[in-house]
Amino acid sequence: MEQGFVLAIHGGAGVMPRADMTPERAEACHAALARVLRAGEDVLAAGGVALDAVTAAVTALEDEPLFNAGRGAVFTRGGTQEMDAAIMDGRDRRAGAVAGIAGVRNPVHLARAVMDHTSHVMMIGEGALAVARDANLTFEDDAYFFTQERWDSLRETLRMQAEGTLDDDPSRRHGTVGAVARDRAGNLAAATSTGGMTAKRAGRVGDSPLIGAGTFADSATCAVSATGDGEAFIRLSVAHEIDARIRLAGTPMEQAARQVVMSGLAAIGGSGGLIAVAADGSLALPFNCEGMYRGWSIEGESAQTAIY
Amino acid sequence: MEQGFVLAIHGGAGVMPRADMTPERAEACHAALARVLRAGEDVLAAGGVALDAVTAAVTALEDEPLFNAGRGAVFTRGGTQEMDAAIMDGRDRRAGAVAGIAGVRNPVHLARAVMDHTSHVMMIGEGALAVARDANLTFEDDAYFFTQERWDSLRETLRMQAEGTLDDDPSRRHGTVGAVARDRAGNLAAATSTGGMTAKRAGRVGDSPLIGAGTFADSATCAVSATGDGEAFIRLSVAHEIDARIRLAGTPMEQAARQVVMSGLAAIGGSGGLIAVAADGSLALPFNCEGMYRGWSIEGESAQTAIY
Repeated sequence: MEQGFVLAIHGGAGVMPRADMTPERAEACHAALARVLRAGEDVLAAGGVALDAVTAAVTALEDEPLFNAGRGAVFTRGGTQEMDAAIMDGRDRRAGAVAGIAGVRNPVHLARAVMDHTSHVMMIGEGALAVARDANLTFEDDAYFFTQERWDSLRETLRMQAEGTLDDDPSRRHGTVGAVARDRAGNLAAATSTGGMTAKRAGRVGDSPLIGAGTFADSATCAVSATGDGEAFIRLSVAHEIDARIRLAGTPMEQAARQVVMSGLAAIGGSGGLIAVAADGSLALPFNCEGMYRGWSIEGESAQTAIY
Repeated sequence: MEQGFVLAIHGGAGVMPRADMTPERAEACHAALARVLRAGEDVLAAGGVALDAVTAAVTALEDEPLFNAGRGAVFTRGGTQEMDAAIMDGRDRRAGAVAGIAGVRNPVHLARAVMDHTSHVMMIGEGALAVARDANLTFEDDAYFFTQERWDSLRETLRMQAEGTLDDDPSRRHGTVGAVARDRAGNLAAATSTGGMTAKRAGRVGDSPLIGAGTFADSATCAVSATGDGEAFIRLSVAHEIDARIRLAGTPMEQAARQVVMSGLAAIGGSGGLIAVAADGSLALPFNCEGMYRGWSIEGESAQTAIY
C-alpha cells in the first residue's frame, strides 16, 4: 500500500546565538532550507526512493555555503578542510562512509560510491579519493570550498584559544548537515555530511561518518542523522540506540529519540540534536541546545523550516 | 564486594583451514595465546583495572607476529601496512580509536593516547600519528612489522585475483586481535587491533576501530571485541547490539552474543566471531566460521586456549 512520503533535513545544531542572528541571515537560512527540502521532495514526488532523496537533499546542503559541509566547510587548526560523510539504505542496511577527504565537491556522493562501487563500508583519506576518481566524481579546488566567514571563524577561535578565552559557542562545534526520508513505498534512508569542528585537530573523526553513531537507517524501525558533540554521540552509538529502543523495547520512535537526546546525551554532557523518521512516517527533530537548522516535509502538507 | 577477575582474548577468526594446520604451528599458536593471557592476568592479579589488562593483552597480541595486528600485520594491495585499533573503558564509556596508521609499534597504545590525551574519540592518518609523537609512543621501521608469510600471502592473493581463482579462505579476511576483561572491582573494558584484510584497498576501515561495531564496553552490561567480515559487523553495529539486547530486552549476554553471531550476521552473509564478558563475569566466545584463535582465564581456574 502506498503511503505519503516524509522528508526531514538539518543544517546542524551549530546555530548562532539568537542575539547574534540578524533578520537577513535568518531569512537566508530559511530560504536555503526550503530549497534543500524541494531538492529532496522532487525525488520523492516523482516516485523516487528514499536513498535518492537523502542523496539529493544532502547534495543541496553541501552546495550551500551557509552550512558546514562541502562548500562552506569549516577549517582545521592547520587551515585545511577535512570532510566526512555517510549514507545508509534502510532497505538492506547497506552503507557507505568516508572520512578525512578534501577536494570532492559532494562528499555524500563519495560515501554513496563506496557503498555502490566497492565491497567496503568505510574508506578514508587517499584511498577514498581513489574511489572518487574511479567513479568520476567532480573535484573542486580550494577556492570553491573557501568562505571568508569560516576562515574568520578559524582565526577568531585560534586567537581565543591562545588567550584562554574560548567560550562554549556551539556554532564552532556542531556544524553538520543531514537528511532522512521515507518514500511512498515505505523505504527509509539517512545521510549525513560535515566539515567537522572549527579548529579541530587534523585527523579527528566525529560521529557523522560512523554508521550507528551519527547515521543509521533500517526500514523496519527508523532513519537517523545526528549533529552535535560527535564524541558523545559515538560513545552512546546514538543512531543505533534509537533503532534498538524501538526494536527491542517497543518504545515509540519519537519517545526514543527524545530520551536519547534529552537524557542520554545530557548525562555525559553531550550537546546537539538529530532528525529521525520512523517506519510509520512519524518524525522527531529533538535538540538539547539553543537551536538546530531544520526543515521537514510531509506529503500533502506544506513544508516547514525552523532554526530555534 | 570483590569478585574474581575474568579475561578473554582472540587472535582473529582468520584461522587457517584445519587441513593446513601443522601440529607445530598449532602448538606455537596455543603457546602465544597462553603468553598473551598471562600478560593480562598479571595486571588483573595485581589488582589492576580492566582497562590496563586489555591494553596489556592487546599489546602482547600486537607484538606477536603470528596474529594480524602490529608486528605481522597483513599488507594492502599496494604493499603497505595500515593498522586500526580501538579501546573502550566500561566505567564511563570513554573511548579512543585510530585508523589508517603505520609505524606505531602498538596501535592500541595510540588508541589509548587518543582517549587519554585528546578530547576526541577517533583520529586517522597523519593527525593520529601527531598524537603518537606528542605522547612519545615507540615507532618502528617497516622491517619490524614485515613478515615473509604475510608478504607471500599478499602475492598469492593478488595472483589469485588476477587469475579469477580467489577462494573464500577466511585467513585472508578475518585477522584481528582483541581482549575483554572484568577486573576484581567489576569494571569492564575492551580493546581491538588489526592490520585489516590482505590485499584490501588502501584506506579501507573495518569494524575494529569503530566504537559500537567491533569494540564496545559498558560495565553495566558487557565488553565486546569482534573479528570477521568488518562490513557486516558495521552494518549491524554488532558490539553495541549485544549491549542493547542485554539492557533493553533483558537477554542474558551469552544468548545475546550467540543470537547476533549465529543469526544476525548469518542473515547478511557475515562470517566471524567475537569475545564478550558480561557484568556478572560470564563469558561468550561464539564464531560462525571454522575457528577463532582464542583464550580465556577465570580467576582461580586454569587458563584455556583454543583454535577450532
